[in-house]
Amino acid sequence: MAIGALQGVSQGQGFVDRRELYDSGVHRALQAGIVGRGKVGAESIVLSGGYVDDEDYGSVVIYTGEGGRDQNSGRQIANQSFSRGNQALVTSCLEGTPVRLVRKMNVEGNDVSGPKYRYDGLFHVESYWQETGLDGHQVCRFRLVDERAYQGYLGSNSPTELNHSTSARRVESVVQRVVRDTALGRRVKELHDYTCQVCGGRLHCVGGPYAEAAHIRPVGRPHNGPDDLSNLLCLCPNHHVLLDRGALVIDQNWNVQPLATKLRMVDRHKLDPAQTSYHWSIWRNESD
Amino acid sequence: MAIGALQGVSQGQGFVDRRELYDSGVHRALQAGIVGRGKVGAESIVLSGGYVDDEDYGSVVIYTGEGGRDQNSGRQIANQSFSRGNQALVTSCLEGTPVRLVRKMNVEGNDVSGPKYRYDGLFHVESYWQETGLDGHQVCRFRLVDERAYQGYLGSNSPTELNHSTSARRVESVVQRVVRDTALGRRVKELHDYTCQVCGGRLHCVGGPYAEAAHIRPVGRPHNGPDDLSNLLCLCPNHHVLLDRGALVIDQNWNVQPLATKLRMVDRHKLDPAQTSYHWSIWRNESD
Repeated sequence: MAIGALQGVSQGQGFVDRRELYDSGVHRALQAGIVGRGKVGAESIVLSGGYVDDEDYGSVVIYTGEGGRDQNSGRQIANQSFSRGNQALVTSCLEGTPVRLVRKMNVEGNDVSGPKYRYDGLFHVESYWQETGLDGHQVCRFRLVDERAYQGYLGSNSPTELNHSTSARRVESVVQRVVRDTALGRRVKELHDYTCQVCGGRLHCVGGPYAEAAHIRPVGRPHNGPDDLSNLLCLCPNHHVLLDRGALVIDQNWNVQPLATKLRMVDRHKLDPAQTSYHWSIWRNESD
Repeated sequence: MAIGALQGVSQGQGFVDRRELYDSGVHRALQAGIVGRGKVGAESIVLSGGYVDDEDYGSVVIYTGEGGRDQNSGRQIANQSFSRGNQALVTSCLEGTPVRLVRKMNVEGNDVSGPKYRYDGLFHVESYWQETGLDGHQVCRFRLVDERAYQGYLGSNSPTELNHSTSARRVESVVQRVVRDTALGRRVKELHDYTCQVCGGRLHCVGGPYAEAAHIRPVGRPHNGPDDLSNLLCLCPNHHVLLDRGALVIDQNWNVQPLATKLRMVDRHKLDPAQTSYHWSIWRNESD
């Protein structure tokens, strides 16, 4: 799996055909629209323009999943499910990993020698759902947002627009949670099989489980905790919030206070007591 | 309360003294370092450079809260707690609202007529904690990040850096959750007193409660749900994830499936059944 930007490939770059696209590593399949693995995530998609259900708004793309299509007509003849490539896109959404997007270009006139595909950069899978497609069958749908637009889109929700005195009319500007996990975060979740180390709960979303990686000692100034497995926990969102905001404190015996439960451990994941000591030091007053 | 950017005031603007700063509306207190109300949030802070515990790294500021200081020496003579202005900063963190930051400038030589304060724009309260200050007392600390840097900081975690094949060494680049609520989101949480409409749980963080506002019918293309109270729920983070990812479906009788519980309602908050119908339509296959 090669997720994210590729060295030597620039945004806007053209490719004459699927073979060249394949060889470049941008989209490593000659036929399939989605390259990826169910539980690992999607690498890339090709927006071919051939499906009646896709909608392309530039920085926002509504992409229809794979499966149930007639090979010749491209029409939907059966329902789709969140499996295979569709599940890979769900995983990208749940993990916050970017997907390379390729557009098939409309080549004017007889210019058959020019590029027919264009790599348009990284997109974020913001949400997914099902609906009845134009052909009457259930299809899986994905909302993808250009990473660059996404940053601006996050920004649009801050300065003036968050001003409480302004009347709110901000369709498309409400961003509530952005989860971006690193490979390391992914690893800690796998080690615990997406089970919260505080409550033992596991969130079962459509298409896959959801958990969050949480640093015991925060990274960045002034804490400077290491971005390391020995400083990471696998938590459900609720216990992640409570840990970060001082309402759960882990002591040096791995007790979770004030719950008086033990942190759930697995053999292959060793935590560093020095990070817990630091965490304890910044919240101990609250645990008295 | 006036949270966010102010019309007629530009970033980098100078002010001769606290009086002028007060009159401009940027920082509406003549003495206090924090302007805000505990449960509403902070409007602005002044970084005076006079406190031994503050650390100013430009786009990242480690700010020490108020209270317990000797008025003359500015030294810490007692412990601080997450009350008053400090609680206001906690609320800004939990709600994701921006805080105006003012820096006291070091005026060179005898130029006493020039501006002594500079408005440096909006900062995001990323985290808070307690520690023993340099004077030996417990102080409340806040990590603030420049909104503009924050957007880049989010961005830095995406393209190449998220590449799974790159070895991870990204201190200060791990952003896992960004919560930005609008005034409307705030309102729905107040109506439910920060209690989850699915489970009845309420997350008690140090300094205040935490909940999230969730749209029943998503806003933005292609759903185009209204950004309106009748389309918003107050949820805990876990149930927010599950609702957005199809694992909880609300039917037209306000049953939460597959839990077979009723959505918790309050009289003053009416939901629009049309939005629930839409939500049901995009997930009904999963609730069978």
